[in-house]
Amino acid sequence: MTAYGTAVREGTPRAFRVEGDRVAFLPAADVGELLRSPELLVASGEAADAPARIDLLPPMLDPQKFVCAGLNYFEHAREVGKTAPHYPTLFAKYASALVGPYAPLLMPAPEVSARVDWEAELVIVIGARVYQADEATAASAIFGYTATNDVSMRDWQKRTDEWLQGKNFDSSTPLGPVVVTADELDVAGGLAITTHVNGRQVQAGTTSDLIFSPVQLVRYISSFMTLNPGDLIATGTPAGVGNARKPPLFLANGDELVTAIEGIGEMRNRCTSAREGGRKSVA
Amino acid sequence: MTAYGTAVREGTPRAFRVEGDRVAFLPAADVGELLRSPELLVASGEAADAPARIDLLPPMLDPQKFVCAGLNYFEHAREVGKTAPHYPTLFAKYASALVGPYAPLLMPAPEVSARVDWEAELVIVIGARVYQADEATAASAIFGYTATNDVSMRDWQKRTDEWLQGKNFDSSTPLGPVVVTADELDVAGGLAITTHVNGRQVQAGTTSDLIFSPVQLVRYISSFMTLNPGDLIATGTPAGVGNARKPPLFLANGDELVTAIEGIGEMRNRCTSAREGGRKSVA
Repeated sequence: MTAYGTAVREGTPRAFRVEGDRVAFLPAADVGELLRSPELLVASGEAADAPARIDLLPPMLDPQKFVCAGLNYFEHAREVGKTAPHYPTLFAKYASALVGPYAPLLMPAPEVSARVDWEAELVIVIGARVYQADEATAASAIFGYTATNDVSMRDWQKRTDEWLQGKNFDSSTPLGPVVVTADELDVAGGLAITTHVNGRQVQAGTTSDLIFSPVQLVRYISSFMTLNPGDLIATGTPAGVGNARKPPLFLANGDELVTAIEGIGEMRNRCTSAREGGRKSVA
Repeated sequence: MTAYGTAVREGTPRAFRVEGDRVAFLPAADVGELLRSPELLVASGEAADAPARIDLLPPMLDPQKFVCAGLNYFEHAREVGKTAPHYPTLFAKYASALVGPYAPLLMPAPEVSARVDWEAELVIVIGARVYQADEATAASAIFGYTATNDVSMRDWQKRTDEWLQGKNFDSSTPLGPVVVTADELDVAGGLAITTHVNGRQVQAGTTSDLIFSPVQLVRYISSFMTLNPGDLIATGTPAGVGNARKPPLFLANGDELVTAIEGIGEMRNRCTSAREGGRKSVA
């Protein structure tokens, strides 16, 4: 497996390459910086034990663009009462929303939001600058993939026509655990993508159910906007969100949210209120 | 007037402070960098002639966050058939959309979009890190203001429920000409805000018609998300957008778009197709 991640190393964020059971720390602050100086991807680095889970950071600490696609699985579109769309629905996530793959997930106070929902998603990691890319160029611009959970405050998401405010609470979006190169993953063939809450499986999808493929998303977005190395595109969530259940089910303080994608790995995030020591955003 | 901007200086972006008819170039790449190292705001700098219009860049080249409020003038809400909202509508703009205050505005090919509309807007420039700010803290976090024209491809904006894709075409959003400090501007009292197309006035509003004030927007956004120095919040556009006219009126290649806000200045951007030499995004 060729994979890269970011961890705390002697008090500072550092990118690493996975090498079997160990890692090589590389001279860059995060995977985004590696992708902007791709000669570093193959630098020899400092061999070290794999970082402890708690030291893992989001692979990209401060992505210039984190574009999110909504309504991009056939089954999820059905569960929220929509037909398959003609165009990708796109919104943005800011870096201040990100947390590491094992970091506390900062919960709003219950009087602020009591509708905190999960959305496991495959994330495209861009490795080359592209604008108005054709299919081959779009495909070769995909460096690899990581995972996110696009945790959504449904009440805030629906307050207005635009979803942004329900998708950007500080420290609410786990990203990671690592970035796996595209050649290792058969997205069209179907990677299992799951969410568990306190051990109970609440989402179990496959990337073969995606409406717009990663290459189609890169082509569509690059048709109007330049994408750069280190940019991220979340590809939408499969069925099983808490808001579509009868009765609805939401996250609460103390819950453990586990997000996993086959071939990439899993993230475990404990829901924690600020008062109980949730950490501030990385950006 | 205390004002700051960014211009090309010997081939490189440099921040400057306005000093009467001249400027002082400061040791920072843009105003965003000044705000993150505020001791530079009062550095002595290199006295120089005011930069030529064509050398002016967006004051912030790569804002971490550019949050945009929609539907935030009473008259504009009326013209698009909406009542005054309970909550601010928020969406995001990426740095790749920005162009300088006198740069060519990159038009999509007519078969891509023929509904390119204007939206003159006052932009809040954040000067201090804030999270869950009270009113006084929110007020003191506003360093100053600049202007933008949130040029919108209405067909793309309406393709899905989310506006982002109609608001983020490369090099479509003029920003500038400079950032003026908050103490110089009476936003509540009413600053005239206008758009002219080829000399014809199409928008003429006043910031006294804002639904959510700058302080209210900073408080609302910071209630869920940390804002940092150099972050931007566009405050929405007054009445007079082309899409609400009968018949509708849109921008075409060769048009000159002039955006002006009292006390901040004006921007003049010529609509240009890529084939005629529109420049690529700054970010």
